[in-house]
Amino acid sequence: MTRRGTRQRRIAGAIKQLPWQKVRNPWAPVDVLCEDSVEIILNAALDILQEQGFRFLHDESRHLLESAGANAANDDGMTRLDRDFVLENIESAPSSFQLLARNPKHSLDVGGNNIIFSSIGGPAFVSDMDNGRRAGTYKDLCDYFRVIQGLNIIHQEGGGCFEPMDLPPESRHLDLYFAQLTLLDKNAQAYALGRERTIDCLEMTGIALGKDREELTEQPAILAIINTNSPMQLDVPMSEAVLELAAANQVCCITPFTLAGSMSPATLAGTLAQQTAEVLAVVTLTQIVRTGAPVMYGAFASNVDMQSGAPALGTPEYAKMALASAQISRRLRLPFRSSNTTTSNTVDVQAAYEGGMSLWSAILGHTNLVNHAAGWLEGGLTASFEKLIMDAEMLQMMAATLQQLVVNTEELALEAIAEVPPGGHHFGTAHTLERYENAFYSPILSSRQNFEAWQEDGCKDATERANIIWKQLLSEYEQPFIEPSVEEALRSYIDKRKTTIDKMM
Amino acid sequence: MTRRGTRQRRIAGAIKQLPWQKVRNPWAPVDVLCEDSVEIILNAALDILQEQGFRFLHDESRHLLESAGANAANDDGMTRLDRDFVLENIESAPSSFQLLARNPKHSLDVGGNNIIFSSIGGPAFVSDMDNGRRAGTYKDLCDYFRVIQGLNIIHQEGGGCFEPMDLPPESRHLDLYFAQLTLLDKNAQAYALGRERTIDCLEMTGIALGKDREELTEQPAILAIINTNSPMQLDVPMSEAVLELAAANQVCCITPFTLAGSMSPATLAGTLAQQTAEVLAVVTLTQIVRTGAPVMYGAFASNVDMQSGAPALGTPEYAKMALASAQISRRLRLPFRSSNTTTSNTVDVQAAYEGGMSLWSAILGHTNLVNHAAGWLEGGLTASFEKLIMDAEMLQMMAATLQQLVVNTEELALEAIAEVPPGGHHFGTAHTLERYENAFYSPILSSRQNFEAWQEDGCKDATERANIIWKQLLSEYEQPFIEPSVEEALRSYIDKRKTTIDKMM
Repeated sequence: MTRRGTRQRRIAGAIKQLPWQKVRNPWAPVDVLCEDSVEIILNAALDILQEQGFRFLHDESRHLLESAGANAANDDGMTRLDRDFVLENIESAPSSFQLLARNPKHSLDVGGNNIIFSSIGGPAFVSDMDNGRRAGTYKDLCDYFRVIQGLNIIHQEGGGCFEPMDLPPESRHLDLYFAQLTLLDKNAQAYALGRERTIDCLEMTGIALGKDREELTEQPAILAIINTNSPMQLDVPMSEAVLELAAANQVCCITPFTLAGSMSPATLAGTLAQQTAEVLAVVTLTQIVRTGAPVMYGAFASNVDMQSGAPALGTPEYAKMALASAQISRRLRLPFRSSNTTTSNTVDVQAAYEGGMSLWSAILGHTNLVNHAAGWLEGGLTASFEKLIMDAEMLQMMAATLQQLVVNTEELALEAIAEVPPGGHHFGTAHTLERYENAFYSPILSSRQNFEAWQEDGCKDATERANIIWKQLLSEYEQPFIEPSVEEALRSYIDKRKTTIDKMM
Repeated sequence: MTRRGTRQRRIAGAIKQLPWQKVRNPWAPVDVLCEDSVEIILNAALDILQEQGFRFLHDESRHLLESAGANAANDDGMTRLDRDFVLENIESAPSSFQLLARNPKHSLDVGGNNIIFSSIGGPAFVSDMDNGRRAGTYKDLCDYFRVIQGLNIIHQEGGGCFEPMDLPPESRHLDLYFAQLTLLDKNAQAYALGRERTIDCLEMTGIALGKDREELTEQPAILAIINTNSPMQLDVPMSEAVLELAAANQVCCITPFTLAGSMSPATLAGTLAQQTAEVLAVVTLTQIVRTGAPVMYGAFASNVDMQSGAPALGTPEYAKMALASAQISRRLRLPFRSSNTTTSNTVDVQAAYEGGMSLWSAILGHTNLVNHAAGWLEGGLTASFEKLIMDAEMLQMMAATLQQLVVNTEELALEAIAEVPPGGHHFGTAHTLERYENAFYSPILSSRQNFEAWQEDGCKDATERANIIWKQLLSEYEQPFIEPSVEEALRSYIDKRKTTIDKMM
């Protein structure tokens, strides 16, 4: 069997999907706040920073702020940031930028009307229908990456779809980066917990892109989620990552985690004010580290379930705050990040409709980065293989929906309309036949079988079909080209680093 | 056990849900067409009517049009309607009106920013998880009505959730109306197939509302879906219904069924032009019958699956055409109808995400009547009890999302933010405790249990939980009050009519 023969067979059997594409939103954003309300919330956020302050737990960050003119921290550790100080500093943050990928065709535009769909990042567990929910392993992680690489609609990997629990915690980020940079040629997020892990990401990305640290600063290639410890605090590991990333001209996506009623007030306006204050505090820090460093306004605002105190995601409150946060972000001219969330424990209708609430509100608000766009389950504790496929279908459908509806003579088809008699059909017209192949969106997952055919086929619901599809994608995976010398350099970087880490233990 | 005791127990056990409420959309509608494109499509529709015409199969309708100044029908049966003739006639159609319900509290505002959620109408089959998919019976129909009456978010019954196949076809509409008018006190759609059935609806609605036929014309109380036989034709039974309803000042919701590639061109613009032409033809007829008769622009435009020719619903094309149709309808100042659709054969994630595509596009386009908003399955062939619950949850979530986000001093909660230390929590603040009960949307169906609790509870997915919930709603059903004399009058009307129908057979 020749190589060519093998490839042809695979393509013939390949899952039909949309080609890799940039997704842009041609619609006007949906505004849920009047302009006055946006100003009131922004002013409240600035008041919070000026009157109450924000706690930077990292001494170096605090000192940097103070050297730049911030007030000295109080006894309670709060750094009060004057309104003008904040406004002057955030001014330099860019409203858009490009994010390099190993494959330049997969580089991403961030900001404006661009939408990036990123796969899930961060869970402890992985699940699929065959083996259930379990602690993630490196093998599972690599398989998950292979499916992500195979799904064209996923623009970016989300910084580790789940923790490979079989690897030592102090060095598993190295294996993660190695997998990201060799199994994928898409952009992948960093795992930004502390200085060392961030520097490793910078170094390894540099190796993969053939750039030294100086050249790497010319254009962003790394994006990391920076979570504040809401309310009103930034811890040391996150601060260290902010300092490294901003200095290297890489992207800090600053995302408070505000569940209204727990980490923020039990009201949406209060949560939005606090969230905005937290984002502005950290944006200020980034711009002091490096004027013009790329940042994003990230929102992860939802509510707790007031009966149980449990997180509630993909809720009406979630959707409204995603829309409102996007609006505040537009006012600040910062690119915006939202997510695709659900609290469901399984890939069921709840996962789909809560995901729909999250996704539609993200799209309508002109979210630039839809984080966790594919794979998220169980409030973010689990990455599901089947959910990855379901989400990819939903993302593809959104991308197709955002395609401009063309109105011209060809599309109006008045001749075809005249040709078909009343009560007749358009199946055989020249106009239809010309468009037979590509007239409409063709699904990955959705079935259009009639009931009888579906029954004969075993009554498989969409989650069961998703199970078949991810396995097929995995079997069709082909590793994207990487120079053997580059792969070798990455391998020796992580081997060397592991030796150092072992010695430190 | 006293009556009071019984009622209290039921309320204690009742499904928690949102109260009955009018739903309004405070957001600006999402426009997917530029203004020029709207005009181009509208002009194309008028061109189609003027150059090609529309086939009214009903002689009386054609003669009415001709008496009013339309061209005589050609040999091919096409009535050509001049552009100015159409535009002058449709001018009198109202942009909004009220629709009476038996319980005046359940009367509905149609038009503007108002949204009505209607339950499914029309299928042949009913399904639930216990007994599967089967031909509907009158007993099932009555149970379905009881659940619909119990779900506050459903504003209107959709004209028979499925056919009661155990009743004779020529008189089952009488039993349907009897069930609508006695088991529900919400507005219910008519079963508008032919003159007799429509007159029966008018008569029985009159009895239920205590109005004679003359009084009934004072305000609309009946809405019927009028489907054209796309392309470009209206059959005799539908025409008879149009004539009866319009003459009685009742609502014709004119809805072409245009699956692009089958009943209309394989392009969205062409489908929109044809659909608009068909709506305008029938609106013209209604206004000739009675100037100012209430009508709606209904859209049921989707695409066929080009591989199989099967209907494809809840697709990107469906969503775009729902948005575009709504925009054309706004230009014509007609209230608009869309739907909540899916092709899925079971209550799975596909049903949820296709429903989400349908529902979000309906809401964003300022749809006034979301037909089939709850219960629809399998391309409309089946009404599902579990789907009814899933949809009710999605509808409630939409209603909650559309509630205005309030920004004021109370809601900004700056004192509460100041009160909680960095990294602390808001669970115990006075601000949270004051809002404990009603701060956030409380779901009917969604679970927020953690994985372990959910596992202990039997790993029930949302569809399985929906099965429990509809049964509980059914067990909690209480028949809304109806004067015994009115119920008796309805009973004797249908008995008498059945005797007449029997004699005619």
